[in-house]
Amino acid sequence: MDNPAVLIVMGSDSDLPVAAKAAELLEAMQVPCEVTIASAHRTPQLVAELAAGVRERGIKVVIAAAGGAAHLAGFFAAHTTVPVIGLPISNGPLRGQDALLATVQMPPGVPVATVAIDGAQNAALLACQILATGDALLAERLAKFRAEMAADVAKKADKLASMGYQTYCLALRQVKKP
Amino acid sequence: MDNPAVLIVMGSDSDLPVAAKAAELLEAMQVPCEVTIASAHRTPQLVAELAAGVRERGIKVVIAAAGGAAHLAGFFAAHTTVPVIGLPISNGPLRGQDALLATVQMPPGVPVATVAIDGAQNAALLACQILATGDALLAERLAKFRAEMAADVAKKADKLASMGYQTYCLALRQVKKP
Amino acid sequence: MDNPAVLIVMGSDSDLPVAAKAAELLEAMQVPCEVTIASAHRTPQLVAELAAGVRERGIKVVIAAAGGAAHLAGFFAAHTTVPVIGLPISNGPLRGQDALLATVQMPPGVPVATVAIDGAQNAALLACQILATGDALLAERLAKFRAEMAADVAKKADKLASMGYQTYCLALRQVKKP
Amino acid sequence: MDNPAVLIVMGSDSDLPVAAKAAELLEAMQVPCEVTIASAHRTPQLVAELAAGVRERGIKVVIAAAGGAAHLAGFFAAHTTVPVIGLPISNGPLRGQDALLATVQMPPGVPVATVAIDGAQNAALLACQILATGDALLAERLAKFRAEMAADVAKKADKLASMGYQTYCLALRQVKKP
Amino acid sequence: MDNPAVLIVMGSDSDLPVAAKAAELLEAMQVPCEVTIASAHRTPQLVAELAAGVRERGIKVVIAAAGGAAHLAGFFAAHTTVPVIGLPISNGPLRGQDALLATVQMPPGVPVATVAIDGAQNAALLACQILATGDALLAERLAKFRAEMAADVAKKADKLASMGYQTYCLALRQVKKP
Amino acid sequence: MDNPAVLIVMGSDSDLPVAAKAAELLEAMQVPCEVTIASAHRTPQLVAELAAGVRERGIKVVIAAAGGAAHLAGFFAAHTTVPVIGLPISNGPLRGQDALLATVQMPPGVPVATVAIDGAQNAALLACQILATGDALLAERLAKFRAEMAADVAKKADKLASMGYQTYCLALRQVKKP
Amino acid sequence: MDNPAVLIVMGSDSDLPVAAKAAELLEAMQVPCEVTIASAHRTPQLVAELAAGVRERGIKVVIAAAGGAAHLAGFFAAHTTVPVIGLPISNGPLRGQDALLATVQMPPGVPVATVAIDGAQNAALLACQILATGDALLAERLAKFRAEMAADVAKKADKLASMGYQTYCLALRQVKKP
Amino acid sequence: MDNPAVLIVMGSDSDLPVAAKAAELLEAMQVPCEVTIASAHRTPQLVAELAAGVRERGIKVVIAAAGGAAHLAGFFAAHTTVPVIGLPISNGPLRGQDALLATVQMPPGVPVATVAIDGAQNAALLACQILATGDALLAERLAKFRAEMAADVAKKADKLASMGYQTYCLALRQVKKP
Repeated sequence: MDNPAVLIVMGSDSDLPVAAKAAELLEAMQVPCEVTIASAHRTPQLVAELAAGVRERGIKVVIAAAGGAAHLAGFFAAHTTVPVIGLPISNGPLRGQDALLATVQMPPGVPVATVAIDGAQNAALLACQILATGDALLAERLAKFRAEMAADVAKKADKLASMGYQTYCLALRQVKKP
Repeated sequence: MDNPAVLIVMGSDSDLPVAAKAAELLEAMQVPCEVTIASAHRTPQLVAELAAGVRERGIKVVIAAAGGAAHLAGFFAAHTTVPVIGLPISNGPLRGQDALLATVQMPPGVPVATVAIDGAQNAALLACQILATGDALLAERLAKFRAEMAADVAKKADKLASMGYQTYCLALRQVKKP
Repeated sequence: MDNPAVLIVMGSDSDLPVAAKAAELLEAMQVPCEVTIASAHRTPQLVAELAAGVRERGIKVVIAAAGGAAHLAGFFAAHTTVPVIGLPISNGPLRGQDALLATVQMPPGVPVATVAIDGAQNAALLACQILATGDALLAERLAKFRAEMAADVAKKADKLASMGYQTYCLALRQVKKP
Repeated sequence: MDNPAVLIVMGSDSDLPVAAKAAELLEAMQVPCEVTIASAHRTPQLVAELAAGVRERGIKVVIAAAGGAAHLAGFFAAHTTVPVIGLPISNGPLRGQDALLATVQMPPGVPVATVAIDGAQNAALLACQILATGDALLAERLAKFRAEMAADVAKKADKLASMGYQTYCLALRQVKKP
Repeated sequence: MDNPAVLIVMGSDSDLPVAAKAAELLEAMQVPCEVTIASAHRTPQLVAELAAGVRERGIKVVIAAAGGAAHLAGFFAAHTTVPVIGLPISNGPLRGQDALLATVQMPPGVPVATVAIDGAQNAALLACQILATGDALLAERLAKFRAEMAADVAKKADKLASMGYQTYCLALRQVKKP
Repeated sequence: MDNPAVLIVMGSDSDLPVAAKAAELLEAMQVPCEVTIASAHRTPQLVAELAAGVRERGIKVVIAAAGGAAHLAGFFAAHTTVPVIGLPISNGPLRGQDALLATVQMPPGVPVATVAIDGAQNAALLACQILATGDALLAERLAKFRAEMAADVAKKADKLASMGYQTYCLALRQVKKP
Repeated sequence: MDNPAVLIVMGSDSDLPVAAKAAELLEAMQVPCEVTIASAHRTPQLVAELAAGVRERGIKVVIAAAGGAAHLAGFFAAHTTVPVIGLPISNGPLRGQDALLATVQMPPGVPVATVAIDGAQNAALLACQILATGDALLAERLAKFRAEMAADVAKKADKLASMGYQTYCLALRQVKKP
Repeated sequence: MDNPAVLIVMGSDSDLPVAAKAAELLEAMQVPCEVTIASAHRTPQLVAELAAGVRERGIKVVIAAAGGAAHLAGFFAAHTTVPVIGLPISNGPLRGQDALLATVQMPPGVPVATVAIDGAQNAALLACQILATGDALLAERLAKFRAEMAADVAKKADKLASMGYQTYCLALRQVKKP
């Protein structure tokens, strides 16, 4: 396997179903990544070591996923100057409002690049965009991804225009049901 | 000076005007304390070392004050099993709502004993209550403090009854003005 | 049974499924505890008596669990200087935001050591940490618990590394389903 | 002085500038009231006694003003079935959001009639409306008060119509400045 | 049927499952009540007429239940000086936060006695407490209700003490399941 | 088909089940409308062209439905002076609170007429009301719609009065169940 | 004076400093408007009459400004099918969050076109946009206003480019100070 | 001047006092940047052109600062795959809560790297961290900056230890006053 360019770290394996979407998108973009579990609160030394070694290992971007008083991204960012993307997870009764604030409201000096609550795909795309500042091929892949997204929206718009909204609505429901 | 029983640590010296009230109350309770600055984000190694050494130094309780994405208390708690009291500070546009959630919403396994936003006095009193579980003299001092608080409220109630609320109100304003 | 060192009190028996997790962890830590129901609003005299007698009975820490306008912890704290841990419960439409604020925003003079919404395990661990300030054996048990938690995270990280994230994800889903 | 029909109790004398507006309006409505200070947290026994004796003293309505984790109204309501009006005060960094939730979100069985944050006048008017269910003269005074309020609005509307909004705006600013 | 002393009005029949609990409790307290539907927004004239006629019909207290931008209670209160109890309903994506603020934050001059979101029982109890300011028998019934509530809590506490929390917990789950 | 007077645009086809209710109501009001998909973020050029051409095509009102950081309505409004109605959608963990703020808090110069979260029917009615400023027949249809709504509420009130609230409640449950 | 096309109504004259900005912009757009005060809560009959007569008087759009439990816009909308623009005012401790929710979260059937908190200019522009659906000259004026806004931004961008950001910053401060 | 590597764009010149801190830090890091004004709502074409041309001009990172319904960062991100850092500004009554949500809650496909409300320094540091993924010298400068920050905290800790907290507190106040 290629040396990972992106490290995806999550605070608990319960965050994996969300974080996995980031890994899948990175794969689709042909960006080698490593996925691991390390808790800022339960394994602080492990996180500190992991974070401190990131630059040496050639990792260019970190994605840190956590919920609640989500300290993982900030903790990572405190130990490295490699860009850290914070991915707040919506578990628990506050549905990610706590994770969002605990991730984004970092003090001056130590930034975390925060994406939407549960926004795993965007975390991966942002990592790609950062890598693409020095990788023209990846930039092309991103441009192609954007074009496909736009085409997909246009295709749905066409389908809606030809089917009418009521038929489209029924079709949506049938996709969900089975 | 006696060995400190309580360590008050704050993330920035801008938190000192609030944190100082905790130190003052500990002093009044004859509890030796140490006050220092250590940032979870700007000096993570320092915090890790400080936290790891707490039990060995005979420190029994830590008070950690921070604002914004307040990770200091949780970070400390991750490195020691000495009780950590989290004191959220209300700086910044969200007025401490971020600091409260980032301090209190800790994941299972690593508790932080959180007090009110800017509640420095209560942080100190909670530290005393914890110490008093093994210190009968301190427990007496706490009981006396409670009795004085109650007496103070009763005195104000008497003053209000004798002055009438309008005169009392005017008197309040004059205290504030000069 | 040993004299209880910790009293767990909840405002309603509907809080028991959450509060029971605190009792279980205390048991695992060999800390004798008593679990009871007493409502600040429906049985105020009972709470007042219970709280006033706590120190005499040798109880060292109280855990008070309540939802909504959660006054139980503050009410308890008003009647004793034994440390009171507030455990906000997430019942009702506001999902514990009301209980968190009603528990943590105590006025100067009467602290409540607040943990996360529904954070019963942390309430128990905090109680142990407080007791461990005067109990070296319990401190060791806490250190061991921490080490086991860390080992558990490391084990999951290893498993994830060897299985790959997709297989791990599938395995997670199968655990949930049956 | 007449026996008070309304008891206004506040948790701290810092609440008096707001609470005084309730007392003033009750006076204007010729409703005898008593104003006192009693803290649910610092003087719980006092509050319990005060609350328990309310019905015997002929007090018909209680207004309880408090900020932060505002337990005073609920605590009072727990000790009496006389109607308790909760007046949340906006002190502190959360500007009364904590006080509102801690006052209004009472559990089934013990209601608190909550008015707006800092809504002292409405607390007094609500007390009058409750008393007026058995006092036709007071009901008339309330009707007159309403009519005067309506007339006052109408007068301002006329003034605005004749002056034009720009001149009225300037006049408003001059009232504020000196 | 007796002349109703309490009018329960709701903005939509979808509020009835909550509002019905208020009617049931009033019945249990032997307080005659009328339950009706009238929308501040869809039938404003009807509400205005209903509200304006309340005092003449001998109705002593109004309970107004509504969700969303809940104007019903305030609208009612604007047309009468009979006490209006506002019952915010938690329908919709904001789960009653909108209804709570739209009900409680009334401007000076027109109070609404607001109870908890979905707090139908407390709305009924508050209505009883208001009526009981002039009805000693009802006051006795309220006192009895309180005593029964307290006894019920004490009974549960006894049951918990004798069964142990684990057995009690299992029993709770079995009650829910069938 | 008539030239559309209203354009309903949504950011994603997942918004269609909500947006369709707007289309249905417009149809019932005999207002020709077009329904399409265009994403401010995935197809910005498409939205810009669509928006820029709106006035020329004779479209009089736009309804823009989006969730999350809902930019669609504001983006549309930036490109045309035709009135744009913003319809915030409640998808995602914040249940539309993000969409509401991202839609309504527009800067001076570019208004968006925002309706309730998921308030598709009101978006359609508002569009009709705007069109009715120049269409007396539509104004009549709106008046009739209002009258029917009022009659429907009155009918339910009558039904409730004759059935009693308990029977009505049971009937409601039976409607929901099958 | 021309017959007013827009009615600006506010709940209290304290809302005038904000509401006046709407009137000024309407004037600049040559749209005749009337400005008045009428409180949904203090003068409900007046509001009902005012609202009911709006269409007959030839008024095409209503702007309703109110703070707190802001019912004015919804109340107006309940009495007319003329479009009502809701302008939430930020007075009071919740800074308009209450007014926003109380204005925008209207139930199905009665829409309010809500603009930003204190967004008086946008309320006026939205009124113009609605009127411009049937007034080509006004549409031109709106287009011109947009072009001027764009030019103003471009001019500032040019100034910033030529001055440099530091000098521009200093200049901004000097404008504010005197 | 060197070709800019970073473009700082703000929605209004009122955002400049905050945004200027980003420019200053970039300068200190020897990263050439361009500062401009372009409003997503008032000059959408300008923003679209600016954004579309970013990659061709060799700009590697964009910082977009905006308040309220802050669409600027998302709008920019929709037109380019160059990384866009969103800087929410705290103007207005909601103090940046609206800007934060409108910036961070982007839909899948178009990420914005969001930093804290008013976190201009962190926006600049994040831009540097992104650039440093391909610039070893800049990475060194960042490491040095971190070391200086840490040293600064350590220096303050030493000063606090030697002065005592009371003297330090007084010194802080004197710095603020003149």
